[in-house]
Amino acid sequence: MDKLRIGITHGDLNGVGYEIILKAFADAELCEMCVPVVYGSPRAAIYYRKNLGLQTNFKSISSVKEAESGMLNMVVCIEEEVKIDVGQPTEQSGKAALISLQRAVADYKAGLLDAVVTAPINKQAIHSEEFPFNGHTEYLESEFGEQGDALMILMNSLMRVALVTTHLPLKEVASHITEERVSRCIARLHKSLKHDFLVSAPRIAVLSLNPHSGDGGLLGDEEQTAIVPAINAQRELGVQCFGPYAADGFFGAGMYRQFDAVLAMYHDQGLAPFKALDVSSSVNYTAGLSVVRTSPGHGTAYDIAGKGIADENLMRQALYSAIDIVRNRRADDEASANPLKIISTERRERGHRENIPSE
Amino acid sequence: MDKLRIGITHGDLNGVGYEIILKAFADAELCEMCVPVVYGSPRAAIYYRKNLGLQTNFKSISSVKEAESGMLNMVVCIEEEVKIDVGQPTEQSGKAALISLQRAVADYKAGLLDAVVTAPINKQAIHSEEFPFNGHTEYLESEFGEQGDALMILMNSLMRVALVTTHLPLKEVASHITEERVSRCIARLHKSLKHDFLVSAPRIAVLSLNPHSGDGGLLGDEEQTAIVPAINAQRELGVQCFGPYAADGFFGAGMYRQFDAVLAMYHDQGLAPFKALDVSSSVNYTAGLSVVRTSPGHGTAYDIAGKGIADENLMRQALYSAIDIVRNRRADDEASANPLKIISTERRERGHRENIPSE
Repeated sequence: MDKLRIGITHGDLNGVGYEIILKAFADAELCEMCVPVVYGSPRAAIYYRKNLGLQTNFKSISSVKEAESGMLNMVVCIEEEVKIDVGQPTEQSGKAALISLQRAVADYKAGLLDAVVTAPINKQAIHSEEFPFNGHTEYLESEFGEQGDALMILMNSLMRVALVTTHLPLKEVASHITEERVSRCIARLHKSLKHDFLVSAPRIAVLSLNPHSGDGGLLGDEEQTAIVPAINAQRELGVQCFGPYAADGFFGAGMYRQFDAVLAMYHDQGLAPFKALDVSSSVNYTAGLSVVRTSPGHGTAYDIAGKGIADENLMRQALYSAIDIVRNRRADDEASANPLKIISTERRERGHRENIPSE
Repeated sequence: MDKLRIGITHGDLNGVGYEIILKAFADAELCEMCVPVVYGSPRAAIYYRKNLGLQTNFKSISSVKEAESGMLNMVVCIEEEVKIDVGQPTEQSGKAALISLQRAVADYKAGLLDAVVTAPINKQAIHSEEFPFNGHTEYLESEFGEQGDALMILMNSLMRVALVTTHLPLKEVASHITEERVSRCIARLHKSLKHDFLVSAPRIAVLSLNPHSGDGGLLGDEEQTAIVPAINAQRELGVQCFGPYAADGFFGAGMYRQFDAVLAMYHDQGLAPFKALDVSSSVNYTAGLSVVRTSPGHGTAYDIAGKGIADENLMRQALYSAIDIVRNRRADDEASANPLKIISTERRERGHRENIPSE
């Protein structure tokens, strides 16, 4: 009975959310790996199932406590009719996305879920006084931590890329690149690689902010004032981090192959080359928070919504990743739960010389 | 006797400049395709030739007018001993780079060269009161045009990428993204694709500045205030340009395959995915100026300088591209030199209805 309970939000109702969820769970094997619980609208699910000619069954339940193993469960968050306008953001589609997300988060907080997988939302549709965030990452940070705790990590078959700044207008990026912030992101990334991915001695590459790494200050000074000091500070703490590397040369030389993760300074710098190289397996993971949350690495895909051509593979990958991370965290906790006491010879190796009796 | 005369600068003396020039011209065939004229220092060339065990011969000449076909010519720009500190920027290496560049430019202006291929410089080393520029592109613009005339285009086997802003600190990028500037870059790119690459009806993709194309204004408004208006203005003039596209999704979906060129808003946005996808054939071309100038798409490569492992292939590609572009420009000029007069039936098709006699 160690199947993990995974909450799945339906995301924006007019995007590809239901299509990828229903397609992924058409494969019964996925229901054997976990207990999946969609937070959704049965009517919307049935609408898409019918229109797209899908067969996936699900069981409507009123609470996650009723979720059963071996099937796709759906906690009914929205019972009434909802207007679906395939392929465009609407007030209704945004509201429905928010209800699903809030309910899944509440259940996670109550200890009723082991992880949350989110289908894509439209930021315009969901944006409101109740949801003044630029994305899932920022919202989850406010629910499960403090500002600066969350770290967005994208992973595919080739690399992991983490972002110092995420959903910010480009003109605001530079002012957010401070030594404190970069240092914190390196530390978070290091911790996540060890705890969430069980990499015992992680190697991290840090990119520069400016073209050509600032060319010695001619093209910007944030390398000198923030990034290099942050790298040095983390190295002093024993973190293996390197850089800063100019992004174009770094990706051009395939240097990502030599590191366990790459820390990019902003969204497009990390994600454009990341996706260019392999979009077929990209999963988004929010590190740094108590909650385990993953999502497929694509958006609402309005342009292909409702056409039956959306690929469910990334949704499946997001589920696998969530399961892996929960298990990794538990294995790591278990392994470090009862550390052996340090005995005197070891203390000597570690440099605790002051405790060694003088000869 | 229609061999083109190509000026080649030696770039930063402590980088891979001489190595890639000498290796490229080890292949005698290249001397058959053009009359190559290096603007250089014979002593430095001999230093590298000896240290790297290369065989390439060259002939020292005092003026480009003495250049001979079938061999590698070298206009002696620096006769005296120069101090070479392999792998690092020095005042001497910067000065030597500048002398070579200035002499080649002067000869081009005097009509003695058909194109210029530049080896990489180090911006710190060359930076001085005499050279207050951030790169070749900016310098050539000041020599051959007015501010805003030059357009940096990188090309490899997969795509052409042009940049609206080039060597700017990231924090200054957003303020340079204006409707006027984006519009001008689209126009320049369109003209270059037709004139320099003989693409008869070019299709141009324009990227956004902000992540997710600004998400309807939530993540920045330059899409709405500058980029979309610029695209619309150019479309009204008959230019086939599309977008703005979010960079990560654009490269992730391989959309560059559907366009003759991609216009990126800043350096890393365009060049990180460009180089990630194919760095093995990347050539830099400065469009928009009367001079034809190309360069290999890599830097001084200090880390591998003097080790004999630098790959000369991009230098060769840069030479091929320069030759192609000069020939394309001439072919295009010839084709459009004596246009046929528009006759009345054609006028009708073109919508000149006012000239058709009423029935």
